[in-house]
Amino acid sequence: MNRTPLTEQNVAEALSFARQAMPGAGEIALRYFRQTLAVDNKLSKGSFDPVTQADREVEACLREELTRYCPAFGVIGEEGGATPGTTDINWIVDPIDGTKAFISGFPTWGILVGLQQEDRVHAGLMYQPATGELFYGSAAGAFLEQKGQTLAMQSRQNVRLEEALLYCTHESMFANQDNLAAFHRISGKARLQRFGGDCYSYCMLALGQVDLVVEDTLQPYDIVPLIPIIEAAGGVITDADGKTPLGGGFVVAAANRELHEEVMALL
Amino acid sequence: MNRTPLTEQNVAEALSFARQAMPGAGEIALRYFRQTLAVDNKLSKGSFDPVTQADREVEACLREELTRYCPAFGVIGEEGGATPGTTDINWIVDPIDGTKAFISGFPTWGILVGLQQEDRVHAGLMYQPATGELFYGSAAGAFLEQKGQTLAMQSRQNVRLEEALLYCTHESMFANQDNLAAFHRISGKARLQRFGGDCYSYCMLALGQVDLVVEDTLQPYDIVPLIPIIEAAGGVITDADGKTPLGGGFVVAAANRELHEEVMALL
Repeated sequence: MNRTPLTEQNVAEALSFARQAMPGAGEIALRYFRQTLAVDNKLSKGSFDPVTQADREVEACLREELTRYCPAFGVIGEEGGATPGTTDINWIVDPIDGTKAFISGFPTWGILVGLQQEDRVHAGLMYQPATGELFYGSAAGAFLEQKGQTLAMQSRQNVRLEEALLYCTHESMFANQDNLAAFHRISGKARLQRFGGDCYSYCMLALGQVDLVVEDTLQPYDIVPLIPIIEAAGGVITDADGKTPLGGGFVVAAANRELHEEVMALL
Repeated sequence: MNRTPLTEQNVAEALSFARQAMPGAGEIALRYFRQTLAVDNKLSKGSFDPVTQADREVEACLREELTRYCPAFGVIGEEGGATPGTTDINWIVDPIDGTKAFISGFPTWGILVGLQQEDRVHAGLMYQPATGELFYGSAAGAFLEQKGQTLAMQSRQNVRLEEALLYCTHESMFANQDNLAAFHRISGKARLQRFGGDCYSYCMLALGQVDLVVEDTLQPYDIVPLIPIIEAAGGVITDADGKTPLGGGFVVAAANRELHEEVMALL
């Protein structure tokens, strides 16, 4: 297996390929958005984790396109698992992040693609096809593309916890009472706390609208593609130990380093 | 004061005028959306109720336009209070419903306009300018207009509580422990419960995506414009006593009559 590190030029090209793949994947997702869906239930014991035809078809489309552009890279997807390439570089794909928003008709879900080599995520993208918003980030910066316009994104650098807008998809996501208590210590000090959001919250953090996202029990594909977007916008995102959250789990995303430190002191 | 009842033709004309007024109002709102805002704090004791320049300017625009089109009608707005006309007919205006979504960058807030005469709401509109979605309803039906296309809306008629998707903006909106307990009795039986949404949840109910919205401490302008949208789509919306929620407060909106009855039995 080829372990040559990616160059900035490689990353820029790969990111450009992934951007080109998004509109086609988005069109597939929109065929199922706000339509009556046959919703599968992946978990058997009463939890609700819809997997739709959209999920499977979007991932199949992205696997094909990304492999065609970059045959040496592997693909690790939520639906189809891992398909190794000839290098240690992988695309991480979450075809529909925010399936509950998706089945509720809210345009706040997203198609996520990340580019990972070992412990480094070089590039990440989130595409919301109903609004046409494409958020992406790499060492070259964080950007929002919509209606042919490109906007450089920056997270809020001067906000502390008492002024912060905090998002979390749902309290039921916390793995245990300790983690929920930690969330409440944080939310009790924030200016405003709102639920909902999924991947959209993290992109709003990069865009300087939301200041904090604190979540738990994330899967790697839920969060890995968002890491470069947040970091390139000036934010900080880690797990509870202060490490890059490559494995998912408990995640603290903050608009700036001081805010992140304030929150970590409450864990 | 003229108390002549509105005819269907009057309502159709007034609704048409209100639809024409929305894009201009939406343009004003978008000037402030995702920009850095000087956020006022209407409530002094720690609660967070942002009132933005957008709120004031959008309402001023709608007051001017609606009064120009229909000089005999009064206007009751969130920001500017009541301006009587020469009849007992009033426009009810909430310039930005979902101010917390607005300041967080989420495209799930809306501009609300209702047409009320005594205890009847003849027409209602919700406009989301970032997505370009215009939801409206009257005796002539419930519709979603977007990108030049018009879609007739219908709420889900065959869903019962155990299959229902339930929305509520935030648990902190419940006025007291009894109301919160009633909400938990309902949410405990629903298939899926999500927070967030504001006016967008009610429109997704009309569109057949969400099945239930249960909220509390609503102001009249938060909910009156949404009543005709839900009713015209086949839904049922009442207060805790089963009456049309003209005064706001505790509200149950359901996709169909049987689901509404199931929920009312839990109050």
